[in-house]
Amino acid sequence: MAKSQPLFSLLLFIFISGTISQSIIQLSRDHDVYCNSWRFSVETNDVGYWDQVPSRCVSYVQDYMTGDGYRSDSEVAASYALGFAKTVEIAGDGKDAWVFDVDETLLSNLPYYAVHGFGYNLLPNSFSDSTREEVVIMISFRTIAELTDRIDCSAPFKLSESFDELSFDEWVDLAEAPAIKASLNLYKELKQLGFTVFMLTGRSEHQRNATAKNLQLEGYSDWERLILRESSDQGKPATLYKSQRRLELVNEGYRIHGNSGDQWSDLYGFAVSERSFKLPNPLYYIP
Amino acid sequence: MAKSQPLFSLLLFIFISGTISQSIIQLSRDHDVYCNSWRFSVETNDVGYWDQVPSRCVSYVQDYMTGDGYRSDSEVAASYALGFAKTVEIAGDGKDAWVFDVDETLLSNLPYYAVHGFGYNLLPNSFSDSTREEVVIMISFRTIAELTDRIDCSAPFKLSESFDELSFDEWVDLAEAPAIKASLNLYKELKQLGFTVFMLTGRSEHQRNATAKNLQLEGYSDWERLILRESSDQGKPATLYKSQRRLELVNEGYRIHGNSGDQWSDLYGFAVSERSFKLPNPLYYIP
Repeated sequence: MAKSQPLFSLLLFIFISGTISQSIIQLSRDHDVYCNSWRFSVETNDVGYWDQVPSRCVSYVQDYMTGDGYRSDSEVAASYALGFAKTVEIAGDGKDAWVFDVDETLLSNLPYYAVHGFGYNLLPNSFSDSTREEVVIMISFRTIAELTDRIDCSAPFKLSESFDELSFDEWVDLAEAPAIKASLNLYKELKQLGFTVFMLTGRSEHQRNATAKNLQLEGYSDWERLILRESSDQGKPATLYKSQRRLELVNEGYRIHGNSGDQWSDLYGFAVSERSFKLPNPLYYIP
Repeated sequence: MAKSQPLFSLLLFIFISGTISQSIIQLSRDHDVYCNSWRFSVETNDVGYWDQVPSRCVSYVQDYMTGDGYRSDSEVAASYALGFAKTVEIAGDGKDAWVFDVDETLLSNLPYYAVHGFGYNLLPNSFSDSTREEVVIMISFRTIAELTDRIDCSAPFKLSESFDELSFDEWVDLAEAPAIKASLNLYKELKQLGFTVFMLTGRSEHQRNATAKNLQLEGYSDWERLILRESSDQGKPATLYKSQRRLELVNEGYRIHGNSGDQWSDLYGFAVSERSFKLPNPLYYIP
């Protein structure tokens, strides 16, 4: 009996370890199955208009955005965009064009949404308003995971219940939105290949300086035109506004080969590109 | 020392169990991150044309299709379709229409692809050809998980390297494709709500009887019309063929509110529906 005890203990250990491992994996998978499906339905536009992440998926979205998932999805989408771009014959007349959206396409507002929105109620109540503002300013794309590790995620919290345009405009004016690395790399490759790049954003004309400054600080350069909403565009659905602007480019003789955007309203409508590339965004929906 | 040994063992056990659990979870997550991203890019159509699942994602796709992921994605997509359908005011003139694709939308060919395609090389070499055929016939959607549990998944295998039209036609003639449960439920709800249902499939006219028989056996009934490719449609891209058929419906006065399909070619083009619902399909792509 004494001889067989270590073997028995080992077998018991392996058995229990296996059981625990299986249980944890199963728990983790069960938790994610529905939210994965919700995200599938968001990204395929099956959901249509939505204004709030389902409460059971808030921590899932937080994990996705701050973990490997969002980074990997952005990289793979960019790789297919580049793969297509390399098949385009560049005529050399400067008319071979690529259109990029800005928010959640070239620049990430995750530092903003981590505090206002999915992160807001995660911050300890002891944080004063000025501290919250500092967090918005200091936080970088790379350190969100660190922030979320430091705060208590067990309390119930909510996400993006109402979009606060005023505070978002203040964030835009800071010009501190980090580049989405995969998009920055794609942008540089497209420039190398000889594409003429247009930026077509739902931001307003009065945000031109801050937007251009932010883009330049993050490494974007030599774009042909940064197109923003003029006063006559206010109130237009994004699909219409962006389609009209693309049509103007087509009428100027540009051949829009590719279009990268995180919203279907960046990609649908008329004067659409030869190929569209949907970037991930489970944070918000723009019709 | 003797007194503290059990406690030490327990702590050691908990520590090692935790480490193993973490390692397994991490390994599982790392394995899935890229393939999740590939699937995102497939389902958003970022990939465009593709004819083969990346080799590193074959087992991921197998797990997805035979596990909870595919079922859950189908259910959530159907729930959003139903949510939209309930907002449609049914005029009562029989002209409020919903269009369904058939393969991987109403019916699942997973039993076929489990053997020809992603499962083919998983079957033990000792299986004779006739046994393989029997497997195709006997296997049901519900028992694929059991099959995959019984066979050796450690050997390298491949998926859908070349689509074999002849063997697929034989499978269609069997009329044994199981219903996708979420779609069957949606179908019945839409009928209850008063929608006129059309089925618009890439299958050919000569497969009408087998297709209708299969649909009826699986619980679908009272559709308005089952539309298949006529000889004049052969060779047309699916997007064109399906758009032309939808346009005929529109010209007949039907209001196509919803369209459910697993391929973007089911949903894009002209005479598109008010809302489209993309069902998951990481098995194949039809342009």
